[in-house]
Amino acid sequence: MAMVCLSDFEAYAKKYLPKIAWDYFAAGADDCTTRDENILAYKRIRFRPRMLRDVSVMDMRTKILGTEISFPVGIAPTGFHQLAWPDGEKSTARAARAMNTCYIASTYSTCTLEEISAAAPGGLRWFQLYIHRNRAASQQLVQRAEALGFQGLVLTVDVPYTGKRRDDVRNGFRLPSHMKVKNLERAFEVCKMSLLDPSVTWNDIYWLRSLTRLPIIIKGILTREDAELAVRHGVQGIIVSNHGGRQLDEGPATIDALVEVVEAVRGRVEVYVDGGIRKGSDVLKALALGAKCVFIGRPALWGLAYKGEEGLQEVLRILQDEFRLSMALAGCASVSEIGQHLVQFSKL
Amino acid sequence: MAMVCLSDFEAYAKKYLPKIAWDYFAAGADDCTTRDENILAYKRIRFRPRMLRDVSVMDMRTKILGTEISFPVGIAPTGFHQLAWPDGEKSTARAARAMNTCYIASTYSTCTLEEISAAAPGGLRWFQLYIHRNRAASQQLVQRAEALGFQGLVLTVDVPYTGKRRDDVRNGFRLPSHMKVKNLERAFEVCKMSLLDPSVTWNDIYWLRSLTRLPIIIKGILTREDAELAVRHGVQGIIVSNHGGRQLDEGPATIDALVEVVEAVRGRVEVYVDGGIRKGSDVLKALALGAKCVFIGRPALWGLAYKGEEGLQEVLRILQDEFRLSMALAGCASVSEIGQHLVQFSKL
Amino acid sequence: MAMVCLSDFEAYAKKYLPKIAWDYFAAGADDCTTRDENILAYKRIRFRPRMLRDVSVMDMRTKILGTEISFPVGIAPTGFHQLAWPDGEKSTARAARAMNTCYIASTYSTCTLEEISAAAPGGLRWFQLYIHRNRAASQQLVQRAEALGFQGLVLTVDVPYTGKRRDDVRNGFRLPSHMKVKNLERAFEVCKMSLLDPSVTWNDIYWLRSLTRLPIIIKGILTREDAELAVRHGVQGIIVSNHGGRQLDEGPATIDALVEVVEAVRGRVEVYVDGGIRKGSDVLKALALGAKCVFIGRPALWGLAYKGEEGLQEVLRILQDEFRLSMALAGCASVSEIGQHLVQFSKL
Amino acid sequence: MAMVCLSDFEAYAKKYLPKIAWDYFAAGADDCTTRDENILAYKRIRFRPRMLRDVSVMDMRTKILGTEISFPVGIAPTGFHQLAWPDGEKSTARAARAMNTCYIASTYSTCTLEEISAAAPGGLRWFQLYIHRNRAASQQLVQRAEALGFQGLVLTVDVPYTGKRRDDVRNGFRLPSHMKVKNLERAFEVCKMSLLDPSVTWNDIYWLRSLTRLPIIIKGILTREDAELAVRHGVQGIIVSNHGGRQLDEGPATIDALVEVVEAVRGRVEVYVDGGIRKGSDVLKALALGAKCVFIGRPALWGLAYKGEEGLQEVLRILQDEFRLSMALAGCASVSEIGQHLVQFSKL
Repeated sequence: MAMVCLSDFEAYAKKYLPKIAWDYFAAGADDCTTRDENILAYKRIRFRPRMLRDVSVMDMRTKILGTEISFPVGIAPTGFHQLAWPDGEKSTARAARAMNTCYIASTYSTCTLEEISAAAPGGLRWFQLYIHRNRAASQQLVQRAEALGFQGLVLTVDVPYTGKRRDDVRNGFRLPSHMKVKNLERAFEVCKMSLLDPSVTWNDIYWLRSLTRLPIIIKGILTREDAELAVRHGVQGIIVSNHGGRQLDEGPATIDALVEVVEAVRGRVEVYVDGGIRKGSDVLKALALGAKCVFIGRPALWGLAYKGEEGLQEVLRILQDEFRLSMALAGCASVSEIGQHLVQFSKL
Repeated sequence: MAMVCLSDFEAYAKKYLPKIAWDYFAAGADDCTTRDENILAYKRIRFRPRMLRDVSVMDMRTKILGTEISFPVGIAPTGFHQLAWPDGEKSTARAARAMNTCYIASTYSTCTLEEISAAAPGGLRWFQLYIHRNRAASQQLVQRAEALGFQGLVLTVDVPYTGKRRDDVRNGFRLPSHMKVKNLERAFEVCKMSLLDPSVTWNDIYWLRSLTRLPIIIKGILTREDAELAVRHGVQGIIVSNHGGRQLDEGPATIDALVEVVEAVRGRVEVYVDGGIRKGSDVLKALALGAKCVFIGRPALWGLAYKGEEGLQEVLRILQDEFRLSMALAGCASVSEIGQHLVQFSKL
Repeated sequence: MAMVCLSDFEAYAKKYLPKIAWDYFAAGADDCTTRDENILAYKRIRFRPRMLRDVSVMDMRTKILGTEISFPVGIAPTGFHQLAWPDGEKSTARAARAMNTCYIASTYSTCTLEEISAAAPGGLRWFQLYIHRNRAASQQLVQRAEALGFQGLVLTVDVPYTGKRRDDVRNGFRLPSHMKVKNLERAFEVCKMSLLDPSVTWNDIYWLRSLTRLPIIIKGILTREDAELAVRHGVQGIIVSNHGGRQLDEGPATIDALVEVVEAVRGRVEVYVDGGIRKGSDVLKALALGAKCVFIGRPALWGLAYKGEEGLQEVLRILQDEFRLSMALAGCASVSEIGQHLVQFSKL
Repeated sequence: MAMVCLSDFEAYAKKYLPKIAWDYFAAGADDCTTRDENILAYKRIRFRPRMLRDVSVMDMRTKILGTEISFPVGIAPTGFHQLAWPDGEKSTARAARAMNTCYIASTYSTCTLEEISAAAPGGLRWFQLYIHRNRAASQQLVQRAEALGFQGLVLTVDVPYTGKRRDDVRNGFRLPSHMKVKNLERAFEVCKMSLLDPSVTWNDIYWLRSLTRLPIIIKGILTREDAELAVRHGVQGIIVSNHGGRQLDEGPATIDALVEVVEAVRGRVEVYVDGGIRKGSDVLKALALGAKCVFIGRPALWGLAYKGEEGLQEVLRILQDEFRLSMALAGCASVSEIGQHLVQFSKL
C-alpha cells in the first residue's frame, strides 16, 4: 500500500493499533463535533490562486520565536507516544530534528525529558506544561526543561478538568502497565487529572514568568478576549487550539478562531494553530489567515504508528511536498508572499 | 453496557420498551421535522470558551420562582409513565427529589396527584394543567394540586387539538387496559382530547388566576408576541416549548424561539425551555441564551425505562456532571457567570 | 395498510401502477432538481404559531373567482388519468364535486369534456388549454368548455416545447393503444407536441379574450416581471407553477416564486400555486404567503391509482383534516386570519 | 442502453475504459473538492424563466474571436485521446468539424498537429500551449500550429508544476508504450513536467506575442486581479478554468469565478469557461453569466470512449438539443437574448 496522503497513515493506524490506543488518540469530547469541525472548517475556505508568478525557486523556511525551521509545520504536544511505537517520544524527537522542525514534548510523555533530549541532541524543542496543584512539581519540570535546552514553554490552559471522551470511558482507558508517565512518575496517577490545578488564573502566568527565562507560549486560546489577555500578560506566543476537540465540544474550529485571534493580537506576538491539518494546502490556508506556523497532533501519531521515526518523517515530508506544491499553484514562491488575499470563506 | 451518555438510555429504551410505547414516546407530528430540529438547532450554536478562570469550586445551584434546585434541569411534564416503568410517576417523583430538582407532574399521569405526593414528600413539584370544557374539573384539579403542596401551575397552551402523530395512528395507540389516567378517571376517555377546550383564550388566564394563589407558568410559547401577552396577563413564568415536536410540525426549534422570547420578556418573568436537551452542554447553551432552567421530557422516560427511579437519577446525574464540566471548560464557576457572551450561532 | 398521509398513497401508486405509468407521472425534467425542490422549499419555511386563540369553530371555506369551495385545495390539470384508474377523469370530476372543490380538467384528458361534465353535473370545473398551431382547434375547445359550464380557462404558458424527461425517453413512453386523448382525437398525435404553437406571445391573450367571456387564468408564471405582464394583459388569475418540475429544470421552487409574484401583483388578481404540496401545513404556508388556493397534481393521481374516485376523496380529506389541524395549532380559526406573520424562512 | 444524457456516457466510459485510463481522466487534485464543486456550483444557480416569448425559430449560433460556430460549446484541451479511442485526436477533430464547433488541441496529444489537421481539413481549431524551459521548443510548436491553420493559441497558465492526483500516484500512471506525446516526441518524457518552465511570468506573454500573429487566449484565470492583468498584457481571450480540478484543490468552481472575471474584464476581451458542464442548461447558465462560449473536457473523452468520432458527436448533439430546449423554455430565441436577468444564485 502506497502512502500517498495523510489519510493513508490514518487508515494504517486504525487497522494496526490496538483498539484502546486508536480510540484514545482518535477520541473527541462528547459528540466529537468540534474534532470533526476542525477538519470541515478548512474545507469551507477557498483559495484565490494567482497565475504567472515565478515559482521556479521555492522557499518554505520560516522562523518561530527567532529560530529557523525548514517549513511551517511542527509537532503538537500529544501524550503517550509509546502507545503508537515502542521508542515513543525518542522517535518523535529524531524525526522532528531530521526534518528540521519544532517538536513540542508533552508533559504526558512516556519518555523522560532527559531521554528525549539525548535521543536527538540539538533539535528544536519546546516543552508543554500544565500547572499542578503542587507548584513545586511544575517548577521542577520547567527548570529541567530549561536546563536540557528546550527553547520554549507551552502552557496548556484548556484542561482545568479532562473532557468527556465517551470511548475512553467505555474502554476504561488506562496506560498498559509497562508504560509510565515518566516525567511525573512518583507524583502522578495516570488518567486522574487530580494533580492539575483548576484554580489557575491569568496571574499564574506571572509566577511562571518568574521561574524561567524561556519564552512562554500559551496553548488553548479561542477568543479575541483571551488573546488580548494573553498579550497583556506578557506571553511570547499563542497556539490557537481546542485540544483536538477533546475538551469542550462544540466550541469553534481552530481555523475559524484563528481569524479573530490574529485580528486581536495585531502582530504583537506570534500566533500558531493546531487541529484539523490534513493536507499541505491546509497549512497554506492557516498561514494565509495569519498563523506563523501550524502544529500537527494525530497525523504525527499515525506516522509513528506506521514506522516510528521513519513513518513520522514520511508524514512530514508529504505535508512539506504538498505545502510547496500548493504554494506554487497559488502563486507564492516564499512564505513571505502568503497573505489573506489568497483565501476567501465559502458561502456554503 | 455502560451508560455513558443520554443516547445510551435512548438505545436501551428503544430496545426494551414495547414498540407501541416506544413509538408513543418518540412520536413527533407529521414529518417529525420540529422534533428533530429541536436537537439539530443546539448543534448550530457554538461556544466561545474562556480560559484561566478559577473553576476549582463549582456551583450549579439556581432558583426557580424562589426555590433553590441543585442544578438547572427539571423534569418536563410527559404522560403515562407506567408505560415506561411499573411504578410510573411515583418513581419519577422520588428521583427528582433525590436529585433536588423540580418535577412537573402531567395531568396525564398514570398515578394520582395524591400518590405522587405521598411517594416523595417534600419534593419540589409543579402541576401541569389543561383547561377542560368542564371548568369544574379543571378547578378541582388545581385545588387538589395546591392542597397537596404543588408549588406551581403549568398551563399547557399548545393543545387545542392533538397533533397528528402518524405512528400512533398506525399503531392505534391507546393505554393498556390495566393503566388509567387516574386524575381524570371518571371524566376522561383516553386519547380523545374531546375534554380539552379549544375555545380557551388569554382571558382564561384571569379565571385560572382567580382559583389559586400558586404561580402560573405558561407552557408552549414560541413567539415574542405571545411572550408579551403572557407577561401582560400576569403569568409568573414561561416555558418555551413545542411539545417535543408533537403538535404543529415545522414550527421553530425551542432553542431558537428562546432567543426572541427572552428578548421580549426583558427579565419581567422567568423563562424556561424544553425540547432537544441531550447533553450537559445543551443546558449551558440554554442558560447562556437566557433560560433560567431547562426541562427534559423523553430522556426522563428513557431513564425510567432503564431502571425506574434509579435510572432517572442516573440520567440526571450524567446531565449534572456534563453540565458542571462544560461550565468549567467554558470558564464559569457558577450559574451567575453564564451569559450570552459564551455562545454564537454558527453560520452553517 | 392504513392510509395516514399522502406518502402512503405515493408508496401505493409506485407499487401498483405499471412502471411506465408511474415513471410518466413521477418524471421531472433533466436531473429532477426542480421537481424535488418544490417539496424541499416548503421544509425551509417555519411557522410562528400563536396560542390561546379561540379555535373551537373552524372555517376553511374560501372563494376562487367568486365561487365558494370547501377548503383551498383544488385539482391541478394533469394528463392521462386512465393511466391511473379505468374511469379516468370521470372519477376525478366526481371526487372533486363530492369534496366541493375545483377541478381543472386537462386538454390531455383521456375522457372528453362532455364525459367529464356528465359524470359530475354541477361541479366547479375549469378547463386547461394550450394554444395550438391550428387556432381553430383551440377556439373550438374553448367554446365547447364554455358551453359545458366550465367556469374558467387555464392557459398553460410553459410548454413551447416539452421538457426532457429522461425516464420517458428511456421507456419510449406513449399511451397504451386503448387510451386516447379524446378531446383532440383527430388532430393530435400523442407525445408529439408538434401541435402546440411555440410562437405564442402575450398578444395571444387578447385573441383568447376575444373568444370567450370566461375568466382567464394563466398557469406557469415564475417571475415578478411576467406576473406584471399577466396583470396588464387582463388575466383574472395566475397559477404560479413550474409544471411539477417537468419543463425547465433548475428554475425556482413554486413556493419561493409565489412570494415575488404575490408582491408584484399587489392584490390586483388572484394568485394560486401548485407543486410540492404534500401536507395540510403546506397549504397553510402557501396561503400565509399570499396564495388564494393551491392545486395538487401528483397526489391526486396517487389517490386515483389507489381507489379511483374514493381514493382521491381520501387524499383530499386527509389534506383537509391536516389543513384544519395546522390552522388551529397555528392559532387561526378561519382562512381570513391566515397571513404572512405566520411564517418565516429558515436560515438553513 | 439508450444514451439520453451525458452521465450515460460517463457510466459507459467508467465501465469500458481500462481502470488506469478512467482514473487518469477522472482524477482531481488531492480530495477532488474543486473537481466536484465545478458541478455542484451549477446546481446552486437558479433560472428565472420568462414565458410567452416567440421561440418558434431558435438560433444558437455565436462567434468566437470572429468565427461563427453552430452553438457555444467547444472541445477543451485534454491529453492522450488515444487512451479513450484508437484514432485519438483525429476522431476528436472530425467530430468537432462535423458539429461546426471549435476544438482546442492539447500539447499532450497522442497525434501530431499535422495528423490532426489532415484528419479534418477546414475545421476551426485552436492550439493549447505550455511554455517550456526550452523556449525554442515552444516557438517551434507555435509556428507549426500557425502554419497548419490553427486559429488561436491557448496558453495554459495553471501548471507551473503538476497537481497531486492521488489515483495517478497509486496507479503509477504512465502512457502505454505504444502511445506517444508525438508533438514533443524527442524532447519530452511523459509525466515528468520537468520540461515546463515554472519561472514563467506575465512578461512572457510579450515574448509569445512576438512569435505569432494568432490571437492569444489565456487559460486558467480564476480571479479578477489576474483577469485585469491578462487584459493589460494584450490577450484576446480568457478561459476561466481550474484545469478540471486537477491542479490546486479547493480553489473556486469555475462558474463562480466566471462572475468576477466577467465583471473585471468589462467586455474588453472574450471570456470563456470550462469545468462542470454536464447539461445544456449549464451552457445557458454560463452564457447568462457572461461567457461567450463554454468548453467541455471529460464529457468529450466519454464520447470518444463510447464510439470515437461518432460518440463525441452524439455528446455534442445532446448538449446542443438540451441547450436549445433550455433556451426556449427560459424564453430566449437567440444567444443574443441570453443575459444575467435569467439567473439568480440560490441561497442554499
